[in-house]
Amino acid sequence: MRTKETFLKSLNDGRKVYYRGKLVEDITQHPVLRVSALHASKLYDYPNRLYNEGEELKSKFFKIPRSSQDLLDRHRLIYDTTLYCNGIFNISQAIGSDALFALMITSKQVDKRYGTDYYKRVEKYLDKVKREDLTLATAQTDVKGDRSKRPSEQVDPDMYVRVSEVRSDGIVVRGAKAHTTQSAVSGEIVVITTRAMRENDKDYAVAFAVPTNTPGIKLYVRPIDELEGNSSAVLSKKDYELETLTVFDDVFVPWDRVFLFKEYDYAGSLASLFATFHRFTALSYRSAAMDLYLGSSRLVSKANGIENEKHVRDDVVDIILYKEILRSCAIASAVNPVMLDEVALPNPTFTNVGKLYSNVHFHDIIKDVIDVAGGIISTLPSQEDLQGSEGSNIVKYLRGSVDGKERANILRMVKELASSSFTGYMLTTMIHAEGSIEASKLELFRSYDYSEAEGLVKKILD
Amino acid sequence: MRTKETFLKSLNDGRKVYYRGKLVEDITQHPVLRVSALHASKLYDYPNRLYNEGEELKSKFFKIPRSSQDLLDRHRLIYDTTLYCNGIFNISQAIGSDALFALMITSKQVDKRYGTDYYKRVEKYLDKVKREDLTLATAQTDVKGDRSKRPSEQVDPDMYVRVSEVRSDGIVVRGAKAHTTQSAVSGEIVVITTRAMRENDKDYAVAFAVPTNTPGIKLYVRPIDELEGNSSAVLSKKDYELETLTVFDDVFVPWDRVFLFKEYDYAGSLASLFATFHRFTALSYRSAAMDLYLGSSRLVSKANGIENEKHVRDDVVDIILYKEILRSCAIASAVNPVMLDEVALPNPTFTNVGKLYSNVHFHDIIKDVIDVAGGIISTLPSQEDLQGSEGSNIVKYLRGSVDGKERANILRMVKELASSSFTGYMLTTMIHAEGSIEASKLELFRSYDYSEAEGLVKKILD
Amino acid sequence: MRTKETFLKSLNDGRKVYYRGKLVEDITQHPVLRVSALHASKLYDYPNRLYNEGEELKSKFFKIPRSSQDLLDRHRLIYDTTLYCNGIFNISQAIGSDALFALMITSKQVDKRYGTDYYKRVEKYLDKVKREDLTLATAQTDVKGDRSKRPSEQVDPDMYVRVSEVRSDGIVVRGAKAHTTQSAVSGEIVVITTRAMRENDKDYAVAFAVPTNTPGIKLYVRPIDELEGNSSAVLSKKDYELETLTVFDDVFVPWDRVFLFKEYDYAGSLASLFATFHRFTALSYRSAAMDLYLGSSRLVSKANGIENEKHVRDDVVDIILYKEILRSCAIASAVNPVMLDEVALPNPTFTNVGKLYSNVHFHDIIKDVIDVAGGIISTLPSQEDLQGSEGSNIVKYLRGSVDGKERANILRMVKELASSSFTGYMLTTMIHAEGSIEASKLELFRSYDYSEAEGLVKKILD
Amino acid sequence: MRTKETFLKSLNDGRKVYYRGKLVEDITQHPVLRVSALHASKLYDYPNRLYNEGEELKSKFFKIPRSSQDLLDRHRLIYDTTLYCNGIFNISQAIGSDALFALMITSKQVDKRYGTDYYKRVEKYLDKVKREDLTLATAQTDVKGDRSKRPSEQVDPDMYVRVSEVRSDGIVVRGAKAHTTQSAVSGEIVVITTRAMRENDKDYAVAFAVPTNTPGIKLYVRPIDELEGNSSAVLSKKDYELETLTVFDDVFVPWDRVFLFKEYDYAGSLASLFATFHRFTALSYRSAAMDLYLGSSRLVSKANGIENEKHVRDDVVDIILYKEILRSCAIASAVNPVMLDEVALPNPTFTNVGKLYSNVHFHDIIKDVIDVAGGIISTLPSQEDLQGSEGSNIVKYLRGSVDGKERANILRMVKELASSSFTGYMLTTMIHAEGSIEASKLELFRSYDYSEAEGLVKKILD
Repeated sequence: MRTKETFLKSLNDGRKVYYRGKLVEDITQHPVLRVSALHASKLYDYPNRLYNEGEELKSKFFKIPRSSQDLLDRHRLIYDTTLYCNGIFNISQAIGSDALFALMITSKQVDKRYGTDYYKRVEKYLDKVKREDLTLATAQTDVKGDRSKRPSEQVDPDMYVRVSEVRSDGIVVRGAKAHTTQSAVSGEIVVITTRAMRENDKDYAVAFAVPTNTPGIKLYVRPIDELEGNSSAVLSKKDYELETLTVFDDVFVPWDRVFLFKEYDYAGSLASLFATFHRFTALSYRSAAMDLYLGSSRLVSKANGIENEKHVRDDVVDIILYKEILRSCAIASAVNPVMLDEVALPNPTFTNVGKLYSNVHFHDIIKDVIDVAGGIISTLPSQEDLQGSEGSNIVKYLRGSVDGKERANILRMVKELASSSFTGYMLTTMIHAEGSIEASKLELFRSYDYSEAEGLVKKILD
Repeated sequence: MRTKETFLKSLNDGRKVYYRGKLVEDITQHPVLRVSALHASKLYDYPNRLYNEGEELKSKFFKIPRSSQDLLDRHRLIYDTTLYCNGIFNISQAIGSDALFALMITSKQVDKRYGTDYYKRVEKYLDKVKREDLTLATAQTDVKGDRSKRPSEQVDPDMYVRVSEVRSDGIVVRGAKAHTTQSAVSGEIVVITTRAMRENDKDYAVAFAVPTNTPGIKLYVRPIDELEGNSSAVLSKKDYELETLTVFDDVFVPWDRVFLFKEYDYAGSLASLFATFHRFTALSYRSAAMDLYLGSSRLVSKANGIENEKHVRDDVVDIILYKEILRSCAIASAVNPVMLDEVALPNPTFTNVGKLYSNVHFHDIIKDVIDVAGGIISTLPSQEDLQGSEGSNIVKYLRGSVDGKERANILRMVKELASSSFTGYMLTTMIHAEGSIEASKLELFRSYDYSEAEGLVKKILD
Repeated sequence: MRTKETFLKSLNDGRKVYYRGKLVEDITQHPVLRVSALHASKLYDYPNRLYNEGEELKSKFFKIPRSSQDLLDRHRLIYDTTLYCNGIFNISQAIGSDALFALMITSKQVDKRYGTDYYKRVEKYLDKVKREDLTLATAQTDVKGDRSKRPSEQVDPDMYVRVSEVRSDGIVVRGAKAHTTQSAVSGEIVVITTRAMRENDKDYAVAFAVPTNTPGIKLYVRPIDELEGNSSAVLSKKDYELETLTVFDDVFVPWDRVFLFKEYDYAGSLASLFATFHRFTALSYRSAAMDLYLGSSRLVSKANGIENEKHVRDDVVDIILYKEILRSCAIASAVNPVMLDEVALPNPTFTNVGKLYSNVHFHDIIKDVIDVAGGIISTLPSQEDLQGSEGSNIVKYLRGSVDGKERANILRMVKELASSSFTGYMLTTMIHAEGSIEASKLELFRSYDYSEAEGLVKKILD
Repeated sequence: MRTKETFLKSLNDGRKVYYRGKLVEDITQHPVLRVSALHASKLYDYPNRLYNEGEELKSKFFKIPRSSQDLLDRHRLIYDTTLYCNGIFNISQAIGSDALFALMITSKQVDKRYGTDYYKRVEKYLDKVKREDLTLATAQTDVKGDRSKRPSEQVDPDMYVRVSEVRSDGIVVRGAKAHTTQSAVSGEIVVITTRAMRENDKDYAVAFAVPTNTPGIKLYVRPIDELEGNSSAVLSKKDYELETLTVFDDVFVPWDRVFLFKEYDYAGSLASLFATFHRFTALSYRSAAMDLYLGSSRLVSKANGIENEKHVRDDVVDIILYKEILRSCAIASAVNPVMLDEVALPNPTFTNVGKLYSNVHFHDIIKDVIDVAGGIISTLPSQEDLQGSEGSNIVKYLRGSVDGKERANILRMVKELASSSFTGYMLTTMIHAEGSIEASKLELFRSYDYSEAEGLVKKILD
């Protein structure tokens, strides 16, 4: 199987990655961005990451879930790899498999209705991905333009990725996707629809996969302020994930990599199936990531000498509640899957319930951590101060129930979590990544089966 | 097996039940209290309620959980019997089995340490209960007196149930338990400890079981205002559960029914094991009971013509969230049990997380329902008005998007749920039954395993 | 001036009041409803209730607010009369004056635009009310029918009160108003519009005042379950307010009592001006009423022996916060009024902010009280039990840090507040009375002046 | 009076300011820190900032509040200067006057009891401050060491600032204060106690004032990541406030600048009086600062084309609620002062209520802003990207309902507010500055007058 080294080498393939206004030569050598490449590469070091498929070893991420147990295993895989990567989600094979599982289901439905052969294409593509042990980004969210208008109603027709030309050997696509996580360090980009569409929007009903270095693809990486803008950073120096604005500037896609093409009536269902798989993934990594906040809160409460204060207990319990509700919902989703053509879809209700809870309450976790840590996390002198000539004078005054050096160390971590640009980044992504609050509410309200509840009340009233 | 009829007949056994200052002759004939007896009796009509134990049929409630699947089945049994009883929990064999499972574990531990033979007694008692298909109340919460003092420090020594005399053939107990659900319509009362104890408190470390009609037991039933004080009541006319202040006025208990006697160091663990089993039960019935609020909110929103308003959607989604988080936690508890001497204990973390969530957020559900229904549920004319000579004039003005009669019908139900004495009762019991908010927080904070979270942070800081 | 006795006598005037399906002969003699009459009558006993207007003494409730100080005085008047009436709002002259102040402003505007003489009619009517020291109910909320349709679109044209006939001497009105507080014990009913209207709805744009005993008016009183359905009731035996469904069955109104007639373009502004005055009133009585919850929480925490527990402290602080935020908003509204034709309108932003807060968080107060009190408030034996032959045995076990009798006494009060039909009634009215959550949000969002905030951001970005 | 220029010049006085491990030569020339100096200097440009005291003009900040109107004026002064400084509080004369008003009250009380002459010293010092129009920092919060121990119990005796030597001409102090806002750009540092003390702690009961360049004072400035670590920063480039760890390395203070010396029984009251004045100040600047969040939310909602979506409305209303509740509490505090020796103290209940609300709910405001803005604020390409060769390609895809350039502009602002290190800084300071959540709860619970509420309930129960 692939190794960390071959993976890293593969990234230097001519892809067009831009950072702070400059084209990045080799991302694995870039002083800032290399951290995200190394983060991705950790997947290849993760112990026990393979399973036997027939006689071949394959990455467990690509194992198609066929049962509750498969989903429980997948939940645990994502939870454990997140812990392995210091609490930072490793999306490299997770999101791509989420997209491919959704495409397996949708393509079969489209084929059935329209006589197309998408399922075979998806199968073949998945086979290649597994054999080559690739990493994949998934680009779903279009840039959208005016949110009050549909794709075809926009002033600029490129606000949703669209088919701009149809050729005998494939299609040409145009537009841009926002927030594409780890695209710049993935081998492939899988593109899927972001919403339901109507006939007028059919040029926007398109799904496909392309190598990241395909001509016309441009990746504009967000500024990594959590690393460049925080001299105290400790976690972000080890692991972070980047996002890009991903522009498709008339990119050619051969037919065997096209998975949806103008079948607008399936755009919504594809978006929703992916969302369900990916929100299940989200519950799994988010519950693991909460160890950062829980562990830090505990350690800083001890360093401050207040670990048994009731308000500290309340903060800690609140974090436990958040973490374990997410985990419960993931487990319940796995235990009650919806079987679609022999693929086990995590239960959409439990998945969306957990996702919505995670969106709505993460900012409370930040409040909890800050309440435990104290204002010092925002007024702490810099690392340069601590290590400079005045260092010992400062450290003297940072003492808590432990000495100043030890307390400064845990404060540095808490600052990163709760009072730095990482905080702002996390607050935003915990609300919007994998679907906004509004999106989760909409999905839950629409798809929930009210018959049991309404039936009970009617029975009583009869 | 036992039938509804034989069960009801068995209640007329000379037990001392008091209601509104009067001794109740035959509870099954009492105009108010009979509803709770009939409610209990529904258990014997519930379809498919038995399982094969060897060659005998036994009630599924008494099946000792040995695996995740057993716990998932138990969760479903409680969920389904709650729906069968119109959304009202049927505690009759649930709480007793919770107590007996806890006693099975504790008694073995005590026997091991002290060479006692409690496990055999529990086993024999359980066997009798199963064979006779009995209903059981469990009396745990002592009346407690001054909450800032321990049992042995109280002004009146009877504030916790205690051994007042030791005889060759058994013990005599004295004191009172609060909030004993369905005691007046159960065959037996199982008494267990309510908290951890110290050596000074050892006379209070006592557990046992007695028939409800044992001399010296007096049951003071709370006023059933949800039935007597609401002429619109529809649900409470069909199902409700009563609670009693249960006084033990020097009650004799023979040795083979004594399950703990002065082994004070196990009082806390018995209390906690029972709490875990019973909170798992609570999650199961509470998630089912939420159908009342969800179904009613949906039906009244339609009757009002506002089912698609966003604030109504938000209310409905909030109820779904509550219901399904409880259910998720129950499922996750079942899937990750702690095996103790071959008994599967629902995972205490997930159980307490779900329980705490259910305590803390139920009052939001009431707010949601009221927001959807409108102020009319508190100003609705009485049933006597609706059925009197002015009825048609009133009904005319109750029209919504449906006619006034149909709307009045659903409003009546919503009033009972959200603007009646039933509301007050539910608000209180959803916060305090099966352990208060404070109790759940304490348990979670104390028992949570922080090593994974603290380890992660330490790893990063190293 | 009028006395309690002459007021009570005045109620026996042939008015058509129905309770539980029966016509009420003389409301002051009715075993249940007389309490609300006596409650209203307390206004005439309230010390120092009059002020000098020229040489005449008038009720302070009718003093037209001309300045911040007048509004601060009015806030205090309502706060203090609420305390005087045991924490129960006394609406008898408050809501009527709120309506008349709004009519003073609107009528002047309508007169200016349409050359009508409404202002004179309002002035004359107000003069009569002051001289005779009358009590007034205000009927605003129409029964509304299908909430997704406007007045003129309803299946039944009577879903909003409307002009059904125009005569030379006046108009005939038809329809019904919901939730009319204390109508059955008021001298007059002032009717105003409930929403903005369009030209099609102009028959519904009507405001007027009529004596309560006017032929065609029928008052259907809600069931007073807080008194009839709670044998422990202590507060509701002394004070409560009733609400009616108020039907106008072709009621004649002479022209000099008509204050708006088809000027549909002022229907919304009248509704909104009244709402502002009345929400200011609401903040004032609600902050006073909170003493019930605050005082009871404190007393029961002491009786339980837990007054210094941190979670109890948190509950108590939460109630203080609620009470004092409401009061702050009332004060800030008074200090920053909007002057309209020499009438001081309480600041609509602060008023709606406070109102919205009071709607959204009252259910938290109930949770706080229950958390402090314990489950005993729902399982407490009845008053009949406490006073019966078993009383002493029960009281023994109700001991806390004080003896059982004293604790039972405060528990009785807490039960009424937090676990009775009074609880359900309060939960509903605190959300919906004086405008729902949705109504307050709508008003705030629409009317808020964003220019300062948007201007600041634009300045920074320039 | 003093001008901006003379103020700035005065800062180059040999003070020992350290930033990122280096001694700062002249803070007004430092590329990063000069912004905070310029921010402070804006006070001298603020129009209409002076009032007549006798024949002299003085800064309004130093006007001693003698009445409600004075407090209302002070509230408005702080509100307006905050807006003048782009929503960033200008603490330079605000916090110092808060401390001096508290010292005026305390010193008189101490003098009365102990026959000291502190009041004269405070008066003389205040006179100098007014005449010279100085800026002052106030250093209150000690570094505290182990939070579970009192000052005299600490391992290192310097964990609270203390008198280390008494000389005939004054005292020598030693220790460190945390979080001293704008110390490095203030003329003087006023030092006061942070908590109640007992006799053992009397060496820590000390208050005084010193020029910032006094030998032995060392100021360690926190890293200004909101400016250095965010290339999109727009607000922080114009205005921010710095905090320091302020070390007193055996600093000499002459007697006439010592305001408390070992009178430990007044340490708590001084701390609390200052807290009340300063929390009143906090309510005033915080309600003004909310314009940043409110204005940005409005503008970005319009740029996204979603300004009328209900969830956006709910977010905006939530921000309005927060802003206006703070403002209401400030106004109510001013209107109901406590007069202490002719100084008007803002009402402590309303002040603490508002403060607690502002602590507990600020993180909700961040959630609201993020919900409105979308995930783009965390994945937005950098300013270098936008201005580089690829800029137009990126801007094309940032279009909303307005063009990409305009939307990018407002997004940049929202990013700074809700997804940057400024966010983390604000989250922390809004919880901990001017007293933590726990501190406000403690104060409210302790000092609240429960007699009205308890009296009402007792009256009903009698």
